[in-house]
Amino acid sequence: MLKQEVLQELATIVGRDNIATERQDLLCYSYDATQMEFLPDAVVHPANTEEVAAIMRLANSAGFPVFPRGAGSGFSGGALPKTGGIVLVTTRMNRILRIDTENLIAEVEPGVVTEQFQQEVEKLGLFYPPDPASLKFSTLGGNVAENAGGPRAVKYGCTKDFVMGLEVVLPTGAIIRTGGETYKGVVGYDMTKLLCGSEGTLGIITKIVFKLLPYPDAKKTMLTIFDSIDGAAKAVSSIIGGKIIPTTLEFMDYATLQCVDRRFNLGIPSEGRAVLLIEVDGDRDLIEKQASQIHDIIRPLGLVQFRAAKDKAESEQLWQVRRLVSPSLRDVNPDKFNEDIVVPRSRVPDVIRRIEAIRQRHDIPIVNFGHAGDGNIHVNIMVDKKIAGMEEKAHQAIREVFQAALELGGTMSGEHGVGLSKAPFIELELTPDQIAAMKAIKQALDPNNILNPGKMFPW
Amino acid sequence: MLKQEVLQELATIVGRDNIATERQDLLCYSYDATQMEFLPDAVVHPANTEEVAAIMRLANSAGFPVFPRGAGSGFSGGALPKTGGIVLVTTRMNRILRIDTENLIAEVEPGVVTEQFQQEVEKLGLFYPPDPASLKFSTLGGNVAENAGGPRAVKYGCTKDFVMGLEVVLPTGAIIRTGGETYKGVVGYDMTKLLCGSEGTLGIITKIVFKLLPYPDAKKTMLTIFDSIDGAAKAVSSIIGGKIIPTTLEFMDYATLQCVDRRFNLGIPSEGRAVLLIEVDGDRDLIEKQASQIHDIIRPLGLVQFRAAKDKAESEQLWQVRRLVSPSLRDVNPDKFNEDIVVPRSRVPDVIRRIEAIRQRHDIPIVNFGHAGDGNIHVNIMVDKKIAGMEEKAHQAIREVFQAALELGGTMSGEHGVGLSKAPFIELELTPDQIAAMKAIKQALDPNNILNPGKMFPW
Repeated sequence: MLKQEVLQELATIVGRDNIATERQDLLCYSYDATQMEFLPDAVVHPANTEEVAAIMRLANSAGFPVFPRGAGSGFSGGALPKTGGIVLVTTRMNRILRIDTENLIAEVEPGVVTEQFQQEVEKLGLFYPPDPASLKFSTLGGNVAENAGGPRAVKYGCTKDFVMGLEVVLPTGAIIRTGGETYKGVVGYDMTKLLCGSEGTLGIITKIVFKLLPYPDAKKTMLTIFDSIDGAAKAVSSIIGGKIIPTTLEFMDYATLQCVDRRFNLGIPSEGRAVLLIEVDGDRDLIEKQASQIHDIIRPLGLVQFRAAKDKAESEQLWQVRRLVSPSLRDVNPDKFNEDIVVPRSRVPDVIRRIEAIRQRHDIPIVNFGHAGDGNIHVNIMVDKKIAGMEEKAHQAIREVFQAALELGGTMSGEHGVGLSKAPFIELELTPDQIAAMKAIKQALDPNNILNPGKMFPW
Repeated sequence: MLKQEVLQELATIVGRDNIATERQDLLCYSYDATQMEFLPDAVVHPANTEEVAAIMRLANSAGFPVFPRGAGSGFSGGALPKTGGIVLVTTRMNRILRIDTENLIAEVEPGVVTEQFQQEVEKLGLFYPPDPASLKFSTLGGNVAENAGGPRAVKYGCTKDFVMGLEVVLPTGAIIRTGGETYKGVVGYDMTKLLCGSEGTLGIITKIVFKLLPYPDAKKTMLTIFDSIDGAAKAVSSIIGGKIIPTTLEFMDYATLQCVDRRFNLGIPSEGRAVLLIEVDGDRDLIEKQASQIHDIIRPLGLVQFRAAKDKAESEQLWQVRRLVSPSLRDVNPDKFNEDIVVPRSRVPDVIRRIEAIRQRHDIPIVNFGHAGDGNIHVNIMVDKKIAGMEEKAHQAIREVFQAALELGGTMSGEHGVGLSKAPFIELELTPDQIAAMKAIKQALDPNNILNPGKMFPW
């Protein structure tokens, strides 16, 4: 519990209207997209960098933990106030400060919603590619803190690849700029990339300088169905080996396909075992040529259906198959654990086979879909929490899925992060020396362990 | 001076043939591409990671500094043994361990020469884009430690953008892996990017996992000459605004042009004030289309010559203009200070004008060329050290050039790094809080200040 004087000081910093301590308000900031809940002692909504810095200085002197939060759409509990203390919400800092069309740079505050930013830059003919599934509500600050990915990462990279510089309030309250506004820069350590994906444990992001691209001329969507997982996986490496790097290479396995087809009756051929939704973008002539090259490349790989969209409306129709996945899954079981392992591209069939064995061993429904282009598979373990023992079974299955990914040279998480939900598993992936080096950095920047404590590492 | 027992232990670790203490041997490792010289107490050539780790453990217990070194081609003194101690040379660790054509990944030891690696991957139809000017002799470990750039960075990025993972011996002697072999991965802090560009101060790189690309289908080179710097600069932003991102956009100013033409008589039109050497790569049809689009875009910008290469031989001829720059410069003055400032692309004309004013103020020859696509200008201050006072004048001019770059939103260095040569200037660019945060990280990972001490920050 925070002392009355501390609450008083917080109110002085952010203004009385921007601090909440009533239970009904606290509840709103006690959960995220995971199924965990922790109640904070107070929620503050600072308006600017100076207020954030003042909060951090107070937190160090009074000794309470601070949990930064954007929209709370995270899948790993990164924004949850595990140890009480305050939740610091960045959504009032939501201005797009400038879009520089000459240097293809934008500067924003952390509370800007991802999709809104995309729309604003697109109005100027520019392109911000990162497209996490949460983009309609997630904030850019959260995207940077978690290094959000998305389907387009195979061609364009993740959020981190578009961050040129940051303004950050360090755990001690010091305000620093990292990186810059130039495409090259090698003066000092790369604090920018260190902060990206640090899950709000090393600093609070208060401004972001993004790199932008010219908006692509055109795009072309193809829905392709294969008679085996191996065919679909081989298609991925053959397309890239054919010097074509698609914007997206979205994958759905047989279980996913069945779910979607059962509910929405999309007319998927009965011999279909795996779907690849492929999109290319760029020069109008080139993408037509690439679509026909892709068809030639994948034809011998057990292709049972190939549909290429002729226009935007047809493209939307093909994307429906992918978008209907989430609503269909609930038919299987009401609850799910959504993990996001990654394996080297060529190991996708192996990992899918191992997950199939895990599914059979535990007799628990698992459906897999995701970003085949970069080997990032969303493994959805479908549970009904009302059935006794099913949740425990799911946790055991998750551990085995992580082990499978790691044994195949992969990682436990490509997009969601560690936060609270994967912290118990981190020693599967990182060695004691790796963890010690990361902890040393955390301790160096946050000597009082004020910022987002208890996340990522086993402390 | 190292004690006899310490030298004995070092010899036991690396073998008697792989340690040198004779003055003539030490001299070979006392300099790099700067004009500084520091004699080490000993030079060791470890063969593998375990030997590197054993050296670091010994260095911590016996208390001597270690300076890692690849080919010693650095431009900022990063490999120089400023405080004595040992130079640790990585050139015996020079194997390409594997090239995975399916996942487009390669794993190498740090001592592999950059160009040799490029040639090996090209044999397999793959592409490693980073192309520092030193690529014929620089090593990949050095490239990663300095985050080497090059002309192709405007399209493809710098060395860091191709590093997926590392094996590193930390200053304490612990061996860790960072990153991985997947395109996505968000478990733990991004130690990989932190190590890239850390100039050998945070760890010794013993293995590198690189991301590769398919080798581009074709390329097209264009030599374009403008009647003003502003025209050339406007050309850069107009081409990129026209949705074409060239592989290279190399720039030469009037002084450079005069040097080259005076010596090699290339028939450059008398009204020519700036050159852009433009190259596009990719699909064969697309690049022809892009070349003609580029011609249309830049025609109204004071274009006085446009030559497009029809084949590889003609392309080589156009590149000659760029390659002859270095040999021509010596005609001006025998010695030069080669700085590599960066400004946002749109500020290139401004910075060139400011440098012109600095040149006039100090009456010292300065020629500028470099990578206009990312605003990275190589500023060459030409001096004759035999002329009394000229070197001091040059140092003052360098400080003013750095100030100009910083005032225009840029950085002191895009490729060369800080090392020793820019350490005296680092407080022009970084604030005390930025430096404190970076030093805290260095101290956390290197508590005894063993690894490459005295570099980068004012200690």
